[in-house]
Amino acid sequence: MIFSIWTSYGNPLVRKNTWCDVTFSHPEIPIRLKDAHRACGENARNTVCVVIDILRATTNIAAILENGCPAIYPCASPEMALELAQKLRLRHGSEKIILGGEQDGKPIEGFDGGNSPLEYTRRRIGGKTLILSTSNGTKTLSAVQCCGEIFTAAFVNITATAEKVASILDANPNQSLLIACSGREGAYCEEDAVGAGMLLHILSKYVEKLEFSDTARAALHVAHGAEKNLEKMLFHSWWGKHLSALGLDEDISFCAQKDITRIVPKLDDGVIRIA
Amino acid sequence: MIFSIWTSYGNPLVRKNTWCDVTFSHPEIPIRLKDAHRACGENARNTVCVVIDILRATTNIAAILENGCPAIYPCASPEMALELAQKLRLRHGSEKIILGGEQDGKPIEGFDGGNSPLEYTRRRIGGKTLILSTSNGTKTLSAVQCCGEIFTAAFVNITATAEKVASILDANPNQSLLIACSGREGAYCEEDAVGAGMLLHILSKYVEKLEFSDTARAALHVAHGAEKNLEKMLFHSWWGKHLSALGLDEDISFCAQKDITRIVPKLDDGVIRIA
Repeated sequence: MIFSIWTSYGNPLVRKNTWCDVTFSHPEIPIRLKDAHRACGENARNTVCVVIDILRATTNIAAILENGCPAIYPCASPEMALELAQKLRLRHGSEKIILGGEQDGKPIEGFDGGNSPLEYTRRRIGGKTLILSTSNGTKTLSAVQCCGEIFTAAFVNITATAEKVASILDANPNQSLLIACSGREGAYCEEDAVGAGMLLHILSKYVEKLEFSDTARAALHVAHGAEKNLEKMLFHSWWGKHLSALGLDEDISFCAQKDITRIVPKLDDGVIRIA
Repeated sequence: MIFSIWTSYGNPLVRKNTWCDVTFSHPEIPIRLKDAHRACGENARNTVCVVIDILRATTNIAAILENGCPAIYPCASPEMALELAQKLRLRHGSEKIILGGEQDGKPIEGFDGGNSPLEYTRRRIGGKTLILSTSNGTKTLSAVQCCGEIFTAAFVNITATAEKVASILDANPNQSLLIACSGREGAYCEEDAVGAGMLLHILSKYVEKLEFSDTARAALHVAHGAEKNLEKMLFHSWWGKHLSALGLDEDISFCAQKDITRIVPKLDDGVIRIA
């Protein structure tokens, strides 16, 4: 019971349940962080956050780090990304900085690349810094920046991320977990909820005392059936259909792969690196 | 495929699928109505809307109409409700107008009653007009007022409402359906998603060509398990725990009853009456 957490708060003898919540879109995050405060103490520093944007930002982030990019700067808007690119190019040289992103799945004028995990090959991104601005994923990363620790997850690295989070929660029972689904234009997306449910399912094998919110239970339900055929689910989802209509079927198939990497991306002081 | 709707739009020879969407909270409704425009034409008049707030507004609305109240005026805020009460009392006499509602489940100062389906007995509400302002349900009704036809549903009248909606969609294949879950403070609520899934499940028995959005599929998944024991689900939900802590267990049990009435409430020009 969630109330047992509130009443037992402050008593170090009571081993509390770890409170797990899921947001379905980035505008939801303030209310969810408020819930985290009620459950786990004074501020969002006690919350471990995992950001999910399966199509395609967080899949892309894992793939880019895997391909030898040492640092990704996520930006909430194309304007902020352009401004940061100018600064970093002056400091480190133009050839070291790549500016990538998309709006509604489409390329942005003046950017070097898009948001496809297939375009950032080792040859292109290895040893270089990426500045990334996307419709939903990087906005979510911006919305959760007050959380204690922030990771990103996708199907491609879901088990590695879940195991990392499990080790943190197991060591610190006062932490709560917020899985932030990026969604679409501020609303629910099927694929991100499936990712959240998969992460919670793996987590429940490692951490004993978990307390699921309404949205956490919903994500578990949504993941239950979809997990059997992730690619089919992606092609049936609203955003999957949208990307498919833009000719991005290969990207969708890439994003459907489960556990092809053990990389866990972590956001620290505005920069994503391997945890 | 949702794209088949868009491309076939305007061709009267193609029998389109009926597009079914679910919002998980009232702030989501503008984006969902935008999707409805894309799928079904020029404006929200082509959208049939069902508002759900199981705990407790739409359960209460069905119960109050069942108990002989001829008209309910839903108001988005307590201030609007007070203002309307003053006007209607001058016009119809104080004894004819009852002002009810809640904020965060608690009574509002200066109001005659709360938001409990148990307090508005036939003796108290029969033949009288109710002005109602609640935390989430009446805000949702205000957010969807541009839709073509607006109904309210709860577990207590879910089958009757689904059958009513089925008859409308069957007669007008150009209509789409939006199920608006009221949620909690602008976020997802388990019980409302269960209601949405139950409504869609019944509907799918009557209407052949349905096209489910991501949220519609999620609601079906969430309802699937919960339907077996609605009362247990309500007591486990966030809002259920909140109401239980306020001593409102009897209200929760009342709201868990399925199909105890055939009444279908309909909002027309700002007033809810029996359809």
